[in-house]
Amino acid sequence: MTAVQNAVGGEVTLDDLPLREDLRGRSPYGAPQLDVAVRLNTNENPYPPPPELVADITKAVHTVAEELHRYPDRNAVGLRTDLAAYLSGATDVALSCANIWVANGSNEVLQQLMQAFGGPGRVAVGFEPSYSMHPIIASGTRTEWLPAPRRSDFSLDVREAASVLREQAPDLTFLTSPNNPTGQSIEPDELAVLVDAAPGLVVVDEAYAEFSDRPSAISLLAGHGHKLVVCRTMSKAFAFAGGRLGYLAAAPAVVDALQLVRLPYHLSAPTQAAARAALRHADATLGSVALLRAERDRVVPALAAAGYSVVPSDANFVLFGRFADAPRAWRAFLDRGVLIRDVGIAEHLRVTIGTPEENDAFLQIAVDVADKELM
Amino acid sequence: MTAVQNAVGGEVTLDDLPLREDLRGRSPYGAPQLDVAVRLNTNENPYPPPPELVADITKAVHTVAEELHRYPDRNAVGLRTDLAAYLSGATDVALSCANIWVANGSNEVLQQLMQAFGGPGRVAVGFEPSYSMHPIIASGTRTEWLPAPRRSDFSLDVREAASVLREQAPDLTFLTSPNNPTGQSIEPDELAVLVDAAPGLVVVDEAYAEFSDRPSAISLLAGHGHKLVVCRTMSKAFAFAGGRLGYLAAAPAVVDALQLVRLPYHLSAPTQAAARAALRHADATLGSVALLRAERDRVVPALAAAGYSVVPSDANFVLFGRFADAPRAWRAFLDRGVLIRDVGIAEHLRVTIGTPEENDAFLQIAVDVADKELM
Repeated sequence: MTAVQNAVGGEVTLDDLPLREDLRGRSPYGAPQLDVAVRLNTNENPYPPPPELVADITKAVHTVAEELHRYPDRNAVGLRTDLAAYLSGATDVALSCANIWVANGSNEVLQQLMQAFGGPGRVAVGFEPSYSMHPIIASGTRTEWLPAPRRSDFSLDVREAASVLREQAPDLTFLTSPNNPTGQSIEPDELAVLVDAAPGLVVVDEAYAEFSDRPSAISLLAGHGHKLVVCRTMSKAFAFAGGRLGYLAAAPAVVDALQLVRLPYHLSAPTQAAARAALRHADATLGSVALLRAERDRVVPALAAAGYSVVPSDANFVLFGRFADAPRAWRAFLDRGVLIRDVGIAEHLRVTIGTPEENDAFLQIAVDVADKELM
Repeated sequence: MTAVQNAVGGEVTLDDLPLREDLRGRSPYGAPQLDVAVRLNTNENPYPPPPELVADITKAVHTVAEELHRYPDRNAVGLRTDLAAYLSGATDVALSCANIWVANGSNEVLQQLMQAFGGPGRVAVGFEPSYSMHPIIASGTRTEWLPAPRRSDFSLDVREAASVLREQAPDLTFLTSPNNPTGQSIEPDELAVLVDAAPGLVVVDEAYAEFSDRPSAISLLAGHGHKLVVCRTMSKAFAFAGGRLGYLAAAPAVVDALQLVRLPYHLSAPTQAAARAALRHADATLGSVALLRAERDRVVPALAAAGYSVVPSDANFVLFGRFADAPRAWRAFLDRGVLIRDVGIAEHLRVTIGTPEENDAFLQIAVDVADKELM
């Protein structure tokens, strides 16, 4: 963030620029990207794409590279059709291309939703702690963000939440299921109560849905299409974090609305081609999800046996504590070669589920750290 | 844009959704994407990437595909360093990675600029007709857009423009050089007058710079880094429209500011890898720019000889007229197999410079249309 003194214009500082006042003093979002042997900090899928998927992506990109002088399909119809087929198979809800929208990561999908349905004079509610990009994207689109609480065990009190939504009457409500960084998910019948209570649009962020047994909120779309949007990503379950592909399922009118705010040609031809290749290998990739779920169900009791308090998780990460000093404990893990995440929740740290070997390394350190760093 | 009746949620209409009021009744931006033999409507470079570039892109993407389960470099340091080297060579200004920022197309760069330096309560000025995405991105970021006029021949009256900037005192000023869709560019000494006159940040959009002999505004960065940003794209000169890579050169503090509003991991690993491959073949690709400039300098007098009024162009497109009924003339070209662009300027149409064969086809029709459709 420091201006490089000897670069052209290096003498200019942020204070010399007409920056928005609310941005002054802020730091860019992002976990430290450190070169550590075991990285369990950003909820990536630890399994690389299998060779046959790498080959298929390469072949698909080769084909579109020959036409890179042309703009990509602005509406990504092929990719949206493929995603509709995947979601239909996963949820037993018959979705079509018209129900799907895509962008460069679910962050861009969320930003487009806030541009179309939020903005100045409009209010969004989220139940915290939750995905920390929600309030940041709200700020970037000048949507007022009203945080509402979860229970002290981080679960969602549905009756209390419904009452908050009725009282605050937000234009947008964000529900994250499974919730990042705490791990719990919400049953569809509970989601229905919240969608009914919210006067505006409800965005259910299901970035980690494939790691959970709970049915998707997509099952509610048929009856609640006028106020429900379900966001997904290929980053986690599809091991496609580097490919940047977020998407949503909603009523076709929601997709129409987003086309009024999306930047034209926002999604490159290689991204569309690579994502379609990844979807052709969904069965193989989702096999890694089963492995990760099994590993999660091994890590959680092992952490508990080591003396930690562990938040129940439906995702590929686990929030655990309670540390007297979480930043110091984070450093203790790092010093021993395992990078996990201090998400800013007092007394807690978050660990991503890795390969069995990575999890073994983490658990071994966790036992050692527990002796020194727990309250 | 019509909701699909038989899709899930197909009964929901835009009127049922809590859409921002100012979006109601709008249509999505974008030229018609029609399947026509000769497409000269979106200022694409007509020359496909040469086979050795296609091979290099393919190889580069193969490498990153093996790590697609990991997030990409959030700061795209390698790509920004390569772009700095390219721009330094093209402009004789020694730029470094710290001077460069990148995003998915220059539209996203412009959106980030307006998020950081524009927004509610702030004002942007542009001299119209110009790139029609500028006011749309202003609207998407709730920046007030104040259009100012060009001369009736579409050239910029620098003295008058400077006076507008002093009077209106905009937070952001957009100058497009060469100007899309009219084609004229602005000399650096004239740009310096305008940057001095503008109290806020000046964004010089140089999407078509490689097609012009005029020096880049980058030459002004050393003295004006506190208020000047120069935007570029790889879409046109680099024949990379499908790859979506826009970038800017500015003081490092401007890059710091944009990192406060950019979505984390906005630029995929394949995009970064493919763009770096394209830059390695810059000499070959920029050879097509020389061909297109020569073709432009053939098309302009040929159109004039056919009786058209042609706006002088420094870019890879030409605005010409004057038609009694431009939409009808557009249709006449389309009916004869050539898709050009009605950019909404009365009595004028815009044609992209294509291959010699495409330009021949266009000119032959232009002679025919001139007899029937000119005033």
